Amino acid sequence: MELKDLGEFQLIERLRQRVPVGEGVQRGIGDDAAVITLPEGHQLLTSTDMLIESIHFRHDWICPEDLGHKAVAVNLSDIAAMGGTPRYLYLGFACPGTTTLEDINAFLKGALEEAARYNVTLVGGDTCRSPGPWIIAVTVEGSTEAGRAIGRDGAQPGDVIMVSGTLGDSAMALHLLQDNRSPAAELLARHHRPTPRVEFGRRLGKAQIARAMIDISDGLAGDLEHILQASQVDGLIEEQSLPVSAAFKYHADQVATWQDLVLFGGEDYELLFTAAPENEAAALALGSELDLPVTRIGVVQDGSGTVSLRNGKGALRPILVSSYDHFCRP
Amino acid sequence: MELKDLGEFQLIERLRQRVPVGEGVQRGIGDDAAVITLPEGHQLLTSTDMLIESIHFRHDWICPEDLGHKAVAVNLSDIAAMGGTPRYLYLGFACPGTTTLEDINAFLKGALEEAARYNVTLVGGDTCRSPGPWIIAVTVEGSTEAGRAIGRDGAQPGDVIMVSGTLGDSAMALHLLQDNRSPAAELLARHHRPTPRVEFGRRLGKAQIARAMIDISDGLAGDLEHILQASQVDGLIEEQSLPVSAAFKYHADQVATWQDLVLFGGEDYELLFTAAPENEAAALALGSELDLPVTRIGVVQDGSGTVSLRNGKGALRPILVSSYDHFCRP
Repeated sequence: MELKDLGEFQLIERLRQRVPVGEGVQRGIGDDAAVITLPEGHQLLTSTDMLIESIHFRHDWICPEDLGHKAVAVNLSDIAAMGGTPRYLYLGFACPGTTTLEDINAFLKGALEEAARYNVTLVGGDTCRSPGPWIIAVTVEGSTEAGRAIGRDGAQPGDVIMVSGTLGDSAMALHLLQDNRSPAAELLARHHRPTPRVEFGRRLGKAQIARAMIDISDGLAGDLEHILQASQVDGLIEEQSLPVSAAFKYHADQVATWQDLVLFGGEDYELLFTAAPENEAAALALGSELDLPVTRIGVVQDGSGTVSLRNGKGALRPILVSSYDHFCRP
Repeated sequence: MELKDLGEFQLIERLRQRVPVGEGVQRGIGDDAAVITLPEGHQLLTSTDMLIESIHFRHDWICPEDLGHKAVAVNLSDIAAMGGTPRYLYLGFACPGTTTLEDINAFLKGALEEAARYNVTLVGGDTCRSPGPWIIAVTVEGSTEAGRAIGRDGAQPGDVIMVSGTLGDSAMALHLLQDNRSPAAELLARHHRPTPRVEFGRRLGKAQIARAMIDISDGLAGDLEHILQASQVDGLIEEQSLPVSAAFKYHADQVATWQDLVLFGGEDYELLFTAAPENEAAALALGSELDLPVTRIGVVQDGSGTVSLRNGKGALRPILVSSYDHFCRP
């Protein structure tokens, strides 16, 4: 059965029946707009993203179910990076009329599972036909106690720079795929089913541990630069301290540019944050509690937005940031 | 200059400089998520839509500036249809790297002007390259006093059915364009620059005049059916009372199917609502105050979701609804 045999309204009705009623939802799917009651004293956080076939993903590399997971995860990650709690999901979805219901259902299964894992409810969206590529537009709303949202502009000289998880896994998987080689399953999972650090981000915000935070979508150096420029400070990274996974190391032997993947590789969706030195221990403890590696990778210094890297021998070099620019790549 | 020469981050920075700071905005463009403080005691309303080239629009029919206006207007219309006040805009936008900056700027000018007209602030979004079609993903957030949002499910037997403005103008313009004929300027404006009935909707909600409301995007009959089915009632429409414009009448002489355009034509973005009979006068008075025609077109009856039409001779027929289904059309 193809999508065009089912129709838009049937698809929406089927979706509606699968979605549980969420906390704070007065009206969800099926009206002109969702109606939501936020917790008292909370501020609204909203993030929105598009994923487009052949730009952000390829069907021969990612299955529809993983794609559903990932489309939602990258937006949850943005809310986590503000120290917020994600709550509501809006899913816009366009594909050709000849798309099979099987593929659509797998995509929706992935998206709804990812949302449910973090107690996030689908409350709206849009479906339509696409003239070619699959197009996914996701909006996630969350909230945080008033005044507790963590922006990119709060880093101060003397802060430590910390990161969750490991770096470069997703980029290594992509590099190997592009090279027609097969990445370790663990790396492929990091690329296709990234884990948004929702609980870690929320707790960093609630406990006011992080002063500036971002999720790594463009690559460590580029995203650190976003923090440094917004905060008008410099950052010094210790090369030796950058955390990489065992699977990454395994493949690194055969990849000449592996250091670039650590520094510039995107889509890890780890949290990168700065904290006052006296809060470093609390950040590490929180990581332990959540079974998530947390690493101090550098310090914030006086300056105006430059990232520098110090290698094991003490040699210092500025990093030329080349984070992914959608319009400037071929 | 083409978009790929400017780059994504430059484009976002330029946009940021053009956008005024909005009420309630703690963080707007440039962080992982927007941070918003809603008015106390208000509920959040959110609507989201996609517009895709060759599905929703054609560049040879609509200029980029009008497209910007329309993309925002259709979402404002959804908030108006809930009786809410639109407040914040998130704009996702993808186009080929070869798109000229002139076209992008015209599109953004239209979108930002449309938002500004209704005191709506751009606070986030996403830009990326498209493999082909222009893709626009819009999210609008608004609010309403708690408990005052008007859904589709509140219609009651005995209610009058009312509509703002005139019907079929947008569909007539599209029909003539598809037929390689030139519509009157007024009709073309209705198709390319629809006016969301923001103030009328807000006031209908605030004064609790409307019991059920929807904006006409799929066509009168289809959207009325949405209200009737959600409310589990029937609706009887008086054919003679359906409001059409002078420009529509002018073209109707040469269009055999003009009645279908009135009943089934989409994209008028007028408000269709039901009200208790004792509130009909208040609705008409509000229309007069805002210089917006408002017409009583029928009544709600006991039933389970069927639309019927009575012609000038008193003959009654059920209407087979055929509102636009994105997946079922060729």
